[in-house]
Amino acid sequence: MSGPTHVPDYRCPDRNRRVILARRPEGIPQPEDFALDEVAVPEAGPGEFLVRNLYLSADPAQRGWASAESNYAKPVPLGGPMRALAVGVVVRSQAPDVREGEFLYGWFDWQDYAVATPAAIFRRASEAVPLSAHAGLLGLNGLTAYLGLTVLGRPMAGDAVLVSTAGGAVGSLVGQIARNLGCRALGLAGDDAKVARCRERYGYDAVYNYRTADWTAALAADAPGGINVYFDNVGGPILDAALRRMAVAGRVVQCGTASVASWTETPTGPRNEREVLTRRLVWSGFVVLDHVAQFEAAARALVSWYQEGRLYYDEDVSQGIEQAPGAIRALYRGENRGKKLIYVG
Amino acid sequence: MSGPTHVPDYRCPDRNRRVILARRPEGIPQPEDFALDEVAVPEAGPGEFLVRNLYLSADPAQRGWASAESNYAKPVPLGGPMRALAVGVVVRSQAPDVREGEFLYGWFDWQDYAVATPAAIFRRASEAVPLSAHAGLLGLNGLTAYLGLTVLGRPMAGDAVLVSTAGGAVGSLVGQIARNLGCRALGLAGDDAKVARCRERYGYDAVYNYRTADWTAALAADAPGGINVYFDNVGGPILDAALRRMAVAGRVVQCGTASVASWTETPTGPRNEREVLTRRLVWSGFVVLDHVAQFEAAARALVSWYQEGRLYYDEDVSQGIEQAPGAIRALYRGENRGKKLIYVG
Repeated sequence: MSGPTHVPDYRCPDRNRRVILARRPEGIPQPEDFALDEVAVPEAGPGEFLVRNLYLSADPAQRGWASAESNYAKPVPLGGPMRALAVGVVVRSQAPDVREGEFLYGWFDWQDYAVATPAAIFRRASEAVPLSAHAGLLGLNGLTAYLGLTVLGRPMAGDAVLVSTAGGAVGSLVGQIARNLGCRALGLAGDDAKVARCRERYGYDAVYNYRTADWTAALAADAPGGINVYFDNVGGPILDAALRRMAVAGRVVQCGTASVASWTETPTGPRNEREVLTRRLVWSGFVVLDHVAQFEAAARALVSWYQEGRLYYDEDVSQGIEQAPGAIRALYRGENRGKKLIYVG
Repeated sequence: MSGPTHVPDYRCPDRNRRVILARRPEGIPQPEDFALDEVAVPEAGPGEFLVRNLYLSADPAQRGWASAESNYAKPVPLGGPMRALAVGVVVRSQAPDVREGEFLYGWFDWQDYAVATPAAIFRRASEAVPLSAHAGLLGLNGLTAYLGLTVLGRPMAGDAVLVSTAGGAVGSLVGQIARNLGCRALGLAGDDAKVARCRERYGYDAVYNYRTADWTAALAADAPGGINVYFDNVGGPILDAALRRMAVAGRVVQCGTASVASWTETPTGPRNEREVLTRRLVWSGFVVLDHVAQFEAAARALVSWYQEGRLYYDEDVSQGIEQAPGAIRALYRGENRGKKLIYVG
């Protein structure tokens, strides 16, 4: 196992620190929307297991989980631990097929310990990649990148694939997967350091700083035949501009809407239905949990590229559970460099 | 052949009346955008044939063909005959496989006579349906209804299928095809007479007058599980409202944007990307000419339902080429009752 040198204490101290949702966020969850508490470590009953979390995951999707607006997930209850994925180790088990000492990636929330049933297991860890990579490369992020791009984006070799948040935990993988599939990868990032990183480390053919005025002109020059696949994590004006650069029969994968600060009052923008019609786009919404049946095939492809050195995977690891409440805001501010994790071992 | 009693003169009088595009329309083409002229009947050269038009077709898509805005078709040149489909009879032929006396549906424009090559033939007429029905039921409209619904909409038996312009030349067929496929057909129309006609003649399970305030509430009550397929001919606020009633994994077929008066300055509306994402919609643009390979299969299905009495097809036939310049505006005003044709035999 790579990562911090602190050795986790598997002997189950008697307190469980938790990050609870203290109030309903408006828009992007802020540190003040959360509170830290400490309760007794729960006990696993029949059919359950107790897991000691090691890596807490921070994901843009948590914004939606914390929201009371209509969504694909039930809102996190106020006063309950913040819903999150985490990598942990099983310390007690009364569940069939769950062994003590086993490493799991699952719905264990932002806390030191979780009692769960096997239904909470997202994937079991393997030796194929470092332990923490199960929370990103082989977790929500990697599966989203691979399945969103391949299942909804349907890239063909030679296609021009545009990715927003091109250097992010999902985007950096989308760009590299597109390249591995023989596509031209074009990226959008929010500062010049990320632009450089996307070019140099992730191998994008071209990357644009979307805060500059002329990125659409540069994109038009680099992809004169239009964009065949747009993998969008941001929505808003960047999406509007990209739609107007799509090739006929292009695919738009709507994976996130990170640029839109609030949906409480629906924001307005240019009407896009004529772009859909005249360009014959296929614009689809992607939620990775719809694609469970394809997780193992996706993980095999990701592991294989990773082991061949054809997929770089980066992590941005904070230390200590008190770092969790600010983690979602940091993601939306683009402050992370790689997959954001909080180590609590 | 059904229709007017006037017997067409196949002997080829020496003048060809034409409806030419006199100026570039702003938005919906108005009668004043066209002019009538009269030129010599052209002669068919080697590889060509001369066709005498009988039924000129008026189609919403002509708005796009006449527009200089980016589109899926080259704009009609100013001063040239207005691009149109028509049913006509071959009066001279120097083209292989085109017989004199044969009835064809093709790109013969708004004029009495056209010289064309076999590439201009859209479909050949058969005895299976009345001659004029080749311009609608088995023409652009019927093929659009069948292929838009089945290929992009992918309806399953039991699905709730919503159709805008439910009583129009395309919509009336979409609703009936949905019913024939075991779906619940829900329609939107612009006046109470059309609403009644949709219910009584086209068999919709429920139809709403979209000019009334409460149609979304009625729709919500009639389709509590949401809309599985929305076949949209109008765009604009009706589309926005329908998107917010879609079921998870619903399909939106963008077939037209008839409610939007002008795209010269892009109109604004509520942002819809969050609906695409959280409902995991598949929102696709449909242009029938992308689906030529499936035309014959579609026509077979349509003929079969028509002959079984499971598909009503209505026409709204005007007499005389001077009726053509106002025909597109009439379509956008919803004045037609059935497929709009101009008889010029």
